[in-house]
Amino acid sequence: MEDKVVRFSVSLPESLLKKLDEKTLDKGYTSRSELIRDFIRELIIEEKWEKDEEVVGVLVMIYDHHRRGLSEKMLEVQHSRVHNILCTTHVHLDHDSCLETIVIKGKPDLIEEMVTKIAGLKGVKFAKLVKTALV
Amino acid sequence: MEDKVVRFSVSLPESLLKKLDEKTLDKGYTSRSELIRDFIRELIIEEKWEKDEEVVGVLVMIYDHHRRGLSEKMLEVQHSRVHNILCTTHVHLDHDSCLETIVIKGKPDLIEEMVTKIAGLKGVKFAKLVKTALV
Amino acid sequence: MEDKVVRFSVSLPESLLKKLDEKTLDKGYTSRSELIRDFIRELIIEEKWEKDEEVVGVLVMIYDHHRRGLSEKMLEVQHSRVHNILCTTHVHLDHDSCLETIVIKGKPDLIEEMVTKIAGLKGVKFAKLVKTALV
Amino acid sequence: MEDKVVRFSVSLPESLLKKLDEKTLDKGYTSRSELIRDFIRELIIEEKWEKDEEVVGVLVMIYDHHRRGLSEKMLEVQHSRVHNILCTTHVHLDHDSCLETIVIKGKPDLIEEMVTKIAGLKGVKFAKLVKTALV
Repeated sequence: MEDKVVRFSVSLPESLLKKLDEKTLDKGYTSRSELIRDFIRELIIEEKWEKDEEVVGVLVMIYDHHRRGLSEKMLEVQHSRVHNILCTTHVHLDHDSCLETIVIKGKPDLIEEMVTKIAGLKGVKFAKLVKTALV
Repeated sequence: MEDKVVRFSVSLPESLLKKLDEKTLDKGYTSRSELIRDFIRELIIEEKWEKDEEVVGVLVMIYDHHRRGLSEKMLEVQHSRVHNILCTTHVHLDHDSCLETIVIKGKPDLIEEMVTKIAGLKGVKFAKLVKTALV
Repeated sequence: MEDKVVRFSVSLPESLLKKLDEKTLDKGYTSRSELIRDFIRELIIEEKWEKDEEVVGVLVMIYDHHRRGLSEKMLEVQHSRVHNILCTTHVHLDHDSCLETIVIKGKPDLIEEMVTKIAGLKGVKFAKLVKTALV
Repeated sequence: MEDKVVRFSVSLPESLLKKLDEKTLDKGYTSRSELIRDFIRELIIEEKWEKDEEVVGVLVMIYDHHRRGLSEKMLEVQHSRVHNILCTTHVHLDHDSCLETIVIKGKPDLIEEMVTKIAGLKGVKFAKLVKTALV
């Protein structure tokens, strides 16, 4: 799909434009357009999650790897949805705790159901889902 | 202060522009510019709260008005900062519960300190601060 | 409805209990129980909004009162749902800007629809909804 | 460090306890204590980020890998802080877009500075930071 670049213009009070330029710099953007584009992308991602379209979620969690049976249960949940899991990464934070990120692709309901199942497991000490999508 | 209206232009992929127009309609905005302006205002408000400028906070809370001494304690906290409180509104939700909104103007630290003091009072069942500012 | 006070016990690592006590103090709570109760109430409010039960919303907004026709349009939206609006408060922030809080009771969808209608009006510069409920 | 398990008791209205048990089930927790423990951990993580203690951040981002020079710039930012980066994971989402997670350990300011630098790069279409910590 070709997606040609177009332009549109925004009218606004001069004071707002000045602030926009400050924020563009502060946030490390190379141009106002880049900042506006990212804002639009966020709106689109939000909508995809609401309207039940295909999205991508990244579950970040920390768990106690000494907890007996936890790894097995986590793998079990993941294997029930093996086609939705794109990738898993594991980091040893200290002697007891591991951090894991799981990248999941699919419908919002399915992703949230998996996250609930994993987050509630005994030994999981932190779990947060980042909601994103192809935009 | 006169704040004349200016224009700037944004370049972006056509697909993003299409989505922006959809969101403008969905959110009930009359134009793209209006949506973009509100987005910039949110960035400014965020910055004012971070940079310790003068801001406005609205504390929304629900409390049990039967709790002995609660009203007195709430008034006490408010009177210690009487110049910062612009307005208080009180609604009877049911036989036991009242909802109150308190509009506070001042530095972020001062507002957050007041909110902590009030939110922790025995009998306060819900407290949330809306962070806004003159923009 | 009588709602008698009961007790339950929580088991946790000693380090977590120590931190809980620190946070109880920091946040101005008079007891651990009070902090835990507020946490449970937040879960309940979240659930009521998800499950389409009767809830309470507080819309906080800032608008330019010079904008011709804005007040009329805002009143129009409100009058279409007059039984749901418990109270409106108005504060003059400066020569141009007003802050208004609108307390709305009803089903989540109805509240969100009203908020979208008002937030999108030309001249409304900030709008945020606080989601709460009787708990 | 031994961290022995202790108990404390919470008093609350019976209706709140009933709701807590419902939420414990809904969220897939095996016990009330587990839910309360996770809530306390969240408070601790929040505090560590505020008080400038050592924390862990996970940056999730999506970018266009065709953008010339982007990978080099991203690597450059990362190499300037090589001791803080625990792990990076890369997933190909489609022909154009990659998702990357970067696990960063260090002081909050350092992590947020890196995130700002990377998020602003031309070609980065989404960036969100998950704030966590060893708890």
